[in-house]
Amino acid sequence: MTQTVDLNADMGESYGAWTMGDDAALLNIVTSANVACGFHAGDWNVMAATMRAAVANGVGIGAHPGFPDLHGFGRQRMNMPLASLQNLVRYQIGAAQAMAMAAGGRIRHVKLHGALANMASEDQELATACYRAALSVAPDIVLMVLAGTAQQRAAQALGAPTACEIFADRAYNDDASLVDRSRPGAVIHDPGLAGQRVSRMVREGAIITESGNRVPTRIDTICLHGDTPAAVRIAAEVRRCLKADGVELALFGGEPV
Amino acid sequence: MTQTVDLNADMGESYGAWTMGDDAALLNIVTSANVACGFHAGDWNVMAATMRAAVANGVGIGAHPGFPDLHGFGRQRMNMPLASLQNLVRYQIGAAQAMAMAAGGRIRHVKLHGALANMASEDQELATACYRAALSVAPDIVLMVLAGTAQQRAAQALGAPTACEIFADRAYNDDASLVDRSRPGAVIHDPGLAGQRVSRMVREGAIITESGNRVPTRIDTICLHGDTPAAVRIAAEVRRCLKADGVELALFGGEPV
Amino acid sequence: MTQTVDLNADMGESYGAWTMGDDAALLNIVTSANVACGFHAGDWNVMAATMRAAVANGVGIGAHPGFPDLHGFGRQRMNMPLASLQNLVRYQIGAAQAMAMAAGGRIRHVKLHGALANMASEDQELATACYRAALSVAPDIVLMVLAGTAQQRAAQALGAPTACEIFADRAYNDDASLVDRSRPGAVIHDPGLAGQRVSRMVREGAIITESGNRVPTRIDTICLHGDTPAAVRIAAEVRRCLKADGVELALFGGEPV
Amino acid sequence: MTQTVDLNADMGESYGAWTMGDDAALLNIVTSANVACGFHAGDWNVMAATMRAAVANGVGIGAHPGFPDLHGFGRQRMNMPLASLQNLVRYQIGAAQAMAMAAGGRIRHVKLHGALANMASEDQELATACYRAALSVAPDIVLMVLAGTAQQRAAQALGAPTACEIFADRAYNDDASLVDRSRPGAVIHDPGLAGQRVSRMVREGAIITESGNRVPTRIDTICLHGDTPAAVRIAAEVRRCLKADGVELALFGGEPV
Repeated sequence: MTQTVDLNADMGESYGAWTMGDDAALLNIVTSANVACGFHAGDWNVMAATMRAAVANGVGIGAHPGFPDLHGFGRQRMNMPLASLQNLVRYQIGAAQAMAMAAGGRIRHVKLHGALANMASEDQELATACYRAALSVAPDIVLMVLAGTAQQRAAQALGAPTACEIFADRAYNDDASLVDRSRPGAVIHDPGLAGQRVSRMVREGAIITESGNRVPTRIDTICLHGDTPAAVRIAAEVRRCLKADGVELALFGGEPV
Repeated sequence: MTQTVDLNADMGESYGAWTMGDDAALLNIVTSANVACGFHAGDWNVMAATMRAAVANGVGIGAHPGFPDLHGFGRQRMNMPLASLQNLVRYQIGAAQAMAMAAGGRIRHVKLHGALANMASEDQELATACYRAALSVAPDIVLMVLAGTAQQRAAQALGAPTACEIFADRAYNDDASLVDRSRPGAVIHDPGLAGQRVSRMVREGAIITESGNRVPTRIDTICLHGDTPAAVRIAAEVRRCLKADGVELALFGGEPV
Repeated sequence: MTQTVDLNADMGESYGAWTMGDDAALLNIVTSANVACGFHAGDWNVMAATMRAAVANGVGIGAHPGFPDLHGFGRQRMNMPLASLQNLVRYQIGAAQAMAMAAGGRIRHVKLHGALANMASEDQELATACYRAALSVAPDIVLMVLAGTAQQRAAQALGAPTACEIFADRAYNDDASLVDRSRPGAVIHDPGLAGQRVSRMVREGAIITESGNRVPTRIDTICLHGDTPAAVRIAAEVRRCLKADGVELALFGGEPV
Repeated sequence: MTQTVDLNADMGESYGAWTMGDDAALLNIVTSANVACGFHAGDWNVMAATMRAAVANGVGIGAHPGFPDLHGFGRQRMNMPLASLQNLVRYQIGAAQAMAMAAGGRIRHVKLHGALANMASEDQELATACYRAALSVAPDIVLMVLAGTAQQRAAQALGAPTACEIFADRAYNDDASLVDRSRPGAVIHDPGLAGQRVSRMVREGAIITESGNRVPTRIDTICLHGDTPAAVRIAAEVRRCLKADGVELALFGGEPV
């Protein structure tokens, strides 16, 4: 049986007159798009255009909710009550559902953005609150979670459909956490290295840490970036390596878009 | 057979630390609530609280989309392409749908807010674009339109379920347009006068103009205001008069909430 | 020689269509106004009207910069680089200077708002950065600081003109820190109690703690609130008690407005 | 005596995580920078960085106030009362003054942005209100106005120091108005053509219209664009042509930066 994996990337991060990322290039590479929902990036027109393009390319659409912080791009941690976080997630998913419906698609998954994602990686209670909120307005949504973090534990405890992701361009510590960005080698800039490493991780079903250890984990999807030309090159090379190694690229879950 | 009419009011217009209107008082008076969707007023928490309260009071919930203009409260006309307006309406309705679902309710109707409503009253093409957008993401939604305006004509041409409204506190010209606010008597401040006038209009199925003429029109709902104590007194008196005159208050369309 | 003290309150916290606080009442009570600068509250029109009213009432004007967080009213801590914080403070003070000039006044002091103030109370490096930024664009500005905190230490180390404030409606611990709001008695709601307590603190030049201890401190100004009718009553009673006890109310520093 | 002209361009139009324009390239070409003030574009950090770079390059700094419309980039006309427009202009100029002071520079000029500029080109009363507001907070500021429009007439009637500008890349009608963008040839894309045309206009002290007519006008500064690589090439070629034709590039007014 052929092994498959999904490739996901953040998209629709332009805003008004400002553009960000090369969404057109990414749509030829990924199988799932995490679409910003207007709070940290994206706007009603950007969402519409991004989702139409995703549908046209057969790419699955996810809602990518973040903190209400356009200036900080959702990268600033905010200390909100959990009930407020839940409303925040519901609002953005609802908006995304309508935009997807109008684009002829639907929201298949939700992936938390930026500081909200970082907080959910560390705090299972917070992650659970966000995921419960998502499921309360989209009962069939797949939770895209970062492998080995509180995100994954929260999703599993909820018994909800889950897609586990690893990063294509980040080095891992032996406990499966990410190497801190301040350390040399934390971010992988070499497309060839990234491609081979990711392909091996997918085929072995394990995170390969910086020291060479293997941490077995479920891997449903690979997180790619597209905000720079270099990032797009890495994304393309990851795709190429996976296919060369016999891994088929397909939407997580094996469902149709 | 008993005559019925719906009473609607804008609600959920607080934002963050700022409050506006006496929603609790209005929820005891109206049968339908037009809930701001976060663009001209309202936020994710205000929407959640307002919709929960509406559900608890058996009040029908409508989405009340407006221009993206918090500072101007959506009262500033904006010259957007129709396609952008459509995305704007879809986004806000989608967000409202999710918030309503989480509150145990659903979005029954849509009513345009502020400058967007004014523009749609004058421009049937614009109104049609907004209503098509609403129906594209909420096929069963009822279009709440201002009687005698391009809003009503657009809704009728679309063949969509429609609720026609008149104002409780505004004087009408003989062509059924509103008397300009700059003219004396344009806004009715006397609760008794407002109540009697509205009750007569509902019972006669006609707008009674300032000069005493009758313009037959469909009347499904009365627009009340609640942003001042005086407005709440008018709202309460309109309700009292209608009941005293044998008009039953009920959600437009006769459907359950 | 007559003892004098300044009374200050936050003002100009309305925004667009939303109003907050009873600025008109406060302007008859205070001698200094901390005017929001448009980032956490206030807007260009609110600032203009507030400053004109302050000038008309002979009330000194201060800039009250906060985090760029309208929704959270600047009460949400943000983790910005110090250089960014400095630009944030400079921008808001510059805007306030222009608005004050157009209103026929000038910016006499700066007081940090909300979460920014809380962070500066705990972190002398952060407080120093903010105050340096303020002085870089307003060399003659007086730093209004919370007595006994890192704010005061930062201002003293800079050798800048400083006005030390105490709260009228908050209980103090024996180390001169504020009693946590979650504890009973932390916030004083009784106008009579607040007035007597403040008057005694000013006359004795000491914070009187909850347990009755005295912590000698410089007291130049009393922080009053005006966001509720109860707060305005406390403010008025504090003013009355001080005058009854022979303390004259005057702008800190003894300078003309 | 050598003829001189100033070259100006809009800058500092990035926002948060989004970048716009090639400010570094433009700073090597222009003599004056119109810096966005945070309402339609720019933020406190972008302003600080842009102004520091301008000072380092000996480029004069102007405030470039616009409508409060980040999403629409200030290109959306807004129907504000003149008093509100005046507060809007004052606020932004004040903020810019502080940022310039901290960068070791000062605000030499003001140029209105986008829809606000378009409205001021047509409506002398509106232009006068904006310029009065600017002068009320910056008495020595130079008004940069579009030659032949209500902007210029307003500035002249006020007797304020004025710098008249023409566009490098726009064709002119015989009445000195701009050819509508919808018409072919309205925007000049050929760097060589733009350079020769501008140089001739400056040397002859006249706008050369599309039909070849000459409309004598004062020309103090040339408006260049830098938002695309093509725009930067035009800007560079305009500079080259002017110098080749013996026109010296210098800050308008002949004052030091």
